[in-house]
Amino acid sequence: MVYLTRIEHFNAAHKLYNPSWTPEQNEQVFGKCANENWHGHNYELYVTIKGMPNPDTGFLFDVKKLSSIIQREVLEHLDHKNLNLDVPFMQGKMCSTEVLAIAIWDQLAPHLPEEVQLHCIKLYETPRIYVEYFGVTR
Amino acid sequence: MVYLTRIEHFNAAHKLYNPSWTPEQNEQVFGKCANENWHGHNYELYVTIKGMPNPDTGFLFDVKKLSSIIQREVLEHLDHKNLNLDVPFMQGKMCSTEVLAIAIWDQLAPHLPEEVQLHCIKLYETPRIYVEYFGVTR
Amino acid sequence: MVYLTRIEHFNAAHKLYNPSWTPEQNEQVFGKCANENWHGHNYELYVTIKGMPNPDTGFLFDVKKLSSIIQREVLEHLDHKNLNLDVPFMQGKMCSTEVLAIAIWDQLAPHLPEEVQLHCIKLYETPRIYVEYFGVTR
Amino acid sequence: MVYLTRIEHFNAAHKLYNPSWTPEQNEQVFGKCANENWHGHNYELYVTIKGMPNPDTGFLFDVKKLSSIIQREVLEHLDHKNLNLDVPFMQGKMCSTEVLAIAIWDQLAPHLPEEVQLHCIKLYETPRIYVEYFGVTR
Amino acid sequence: MVYLTRIEHFNAAHKLYNPSWTPEQNEQVFGKCANENWHGHNYELYVTIKGMPNPDTGFLFDVKKLSSIIQREVLEHLDHKNLNLDVPFMQGKMCSTEVLAIAIWDQLAPHLPEEVQLHCIKLYETPRIYVEYFGVTR
Amino acid sequence: MVYLTRIEHFNAAHKLYNPSWTPEQNEQVFGKCANENWHGHNYELYVTIKGMPNPDTGFLFDVKKLSSIIQREVLEHLDHKNLNLDVPFMQGKMCSTEVLAIAIWDQLAPHLPEEVQLHCIKLYETPRIYVEYFGVTR
Repeated sequence: MVYLTRIEHFNAAHKLYNPSWTPEQNEQVFGKCANENWHGHNYELYVTIKGMPNPDTGFLFDVKKLSSIIQREVLEHLDHKNLNLDVPFMQGKMCSTEVLAIAIWDQLAPHLPEEVQLHCIKLYETPRIYVEYFGVTR
Repeated sequence: MVYLTRIEHFNAAHKLYNPSWTPEQNEQVFGKCANENWHGHNYELYVTIKGMPNPDTGFLFDVKKLSSIIQREVLEHLDHKNLNLDVPFMQGKMCSTEVLAIAIWDQLAPHLPEEVQLHCIKLYETPRIYVEYFGVTR
Repeated sequence: MVYLTRIEHFNAAHKLYNPSWTPEQNEQVFGKCANENWHGHNYELYVTIKGMPNPDTGFLFDVKKLSSIIQREVLEHLDHKNLNLDVPFMQGKMCSTEVLAIAIWDQLAPHLPEEVQLHCIKLYETPRIYVEYFGVTR
Repeated sequence: MVYLTRIEHFNAAHKLYNPSWTPEQNEQVFGKCANENWHGHNYELYVTIKGMPNPDTGFLFDVKKLSSIIQREVLEHLDHKNLNLDVPFMQGKMCSTEVLAIAIWDQLAPHLPEEVQLHCIKLYETPRIYVEYFGVTR
Repeated sequence: MVYLTRIEHFNAAHKLYNPSWTPEQNEQVFGKCANENWHGHNYELYVTIKGMPNPDTGFLFDVKKLSSIIQREVLEHLDHKNLNLDVPFMQGKMCSTEVLAIAIWDQLAPHLPEEVQLHCIKLYETPRIYVEYFGVTR
Repeated sequence: MVYLTRIEHFNAAHKLYNPSWTPEQNEQVFGKCANENWHGHNYELYVTIKGMPNPDTGFLFDVKKLSSIIQREVLEHLDHKNLNLDVPFMQGKMCSTEVLAIAIWDQLAPHLPEEVQLHCIKLYETPRIYVEYFGVTR
């Protein structure tokens, strides 16, 4: 078993805001992250898959194909978007890095080929904060 | 003469949008950067000052004081903000990295003490794009 | 279950020195790391916690609060200090990165709230050397 | 149990090429990575060992000795080499990062002292692609 | 006047080898960099242009267009290639980073639009070695 | 004219302390950087030289030789040392990054061969603070 990681990048706007709370509650809990006019980040996304290398290619999976799948299923929906307003799979969810990492897993996992398993979604929100998610079965 | 650089960080939302153009023109020129719902970045800000070290301290200027001035005059206005909507010194300007770097210079330069000169504002918009501005006199 | 990591920074002096050995033994084992006049490092500290995100906030735990706890319980004692001389929780211990990582775990774990678990202390001593510690129960 | 990681660097040329296939098949599967005149990379190699720190030294293992073993058993054979042509332990193997990481494990593990266990070989091929291998027993 | 930098990446094989010398001379001068079977690198290419921002766009130059020009005029010829064998504009030249940086300048400069000037080609050969070239007029 | 930069690394202890002041004055000016028991840093040293590439080698100067000269004339005196106590060329000087960068220039410049000129000493004290020095003639 080997683990292969591809690192991708996207930029997005968001705010941390619970719509069932008052603005005052939101500001008390989320501080400047609740700015009603949004703020944003350069997100670094690490996608790790696991499996056995194919003896004919030496590949667990062709990393260019992995990158294309991430592009189509994830980045297309997130890059240069507003996470709260523009992203169908984030509707009705809090836009924290934790929730976004889980949503990226759920979005990506069904589109990977059978011979590989998604192992980890790691998501940097800033150079000093990141979240990792390993799926529900771990 | 020595050059001292302090690196700071801020997050912000913005869009590239010329309000005197139609939405179609904006999208044609700026592509996904014109997304009406905004996107955002982790900006890395390099502030370089120059001068002679003080023989009593060995300092060109106390970097903690430099950091405080940057915080008060620049980051307080930019961090976790919407560059198009929330920032007085960006009003009526295009929110490109080029224009933002010049605006940060103009905002910061008057607040530095006489014994130091501002030399360069360097601003990373993404890990692969940055702008440098050395003032009008160079 | 998600994992949230906050990266912090501190600077410190230390030496690798076993006081029950002769200076010659220390130099033989530790080489230039035993320099009696100390040397030092910029340490990068990765603190990883794990748990379930709170549905109201989307947070495993507020990363600003996590940062405050690390600051108060760990960095306050280590930053700009001499690890051998100034740090109560390193007294009588070897000042290796391995031992320091374990000591940081023991110092931090009791001060985290019940709903989160400390998962990993990762400590870079130089850009090319780091130690990870996952606690005694793993 | 603590984990200690040493990061090393080497440069090498390689191509992805299955000699039992036609050139057309190779180009179809590997694209420009199959360029018959080779291409190359700066590889970053992370070697992680695990064990208990020695109470006399505070060390899991002397990282300078670890670095010497990696140098002698691994880097000496890979640095500034052609992975397909020059490396005895890659003969008859596909030169993918997956296969190379496994080969480095097999090359290094027998030369580590008994008190430490090899835990992980992590190998960056580019700043955006890396492979991890934890041995056959995991 | 502002300066805008775009960072790009390519991988290539090369060797340092003067064909008018004997193999022994080459090995004496270039050491393992003269390995007849090649070695290779991940090159990081920083392209800096300078000029005045356009008041309608805020752009010195559209960085996506800059990236396309670099891709077409430079990376297309270098990425996943052998610098000594595959690159027309390196024929008959030594494949050092110094010479390659100058060749990239000569290759790129004629294809930039009139309103911008090429300011600097900066080329990392490894994370610890880079070359900068500012053209002949400076 | 091309510019070639080699990046080196050293670790050292120091304190910011003016011996002609009282301890109170030192603490007032330097804060925790004046800790009498020292603190320390991982310094990153960028040495930039300039000149014309040699047509026979393509080299401005052999970077391995440059590295050896830096090692012998600079790092040998600084690495794993106490900058205030152990370094002959820092005696009687304030141990700021500004002063250290100038001292490294003065230490290194006389030992470079005639065909190259020292252009810049750039010294990172932490990942967020660096100093550049270009010599007295600029």
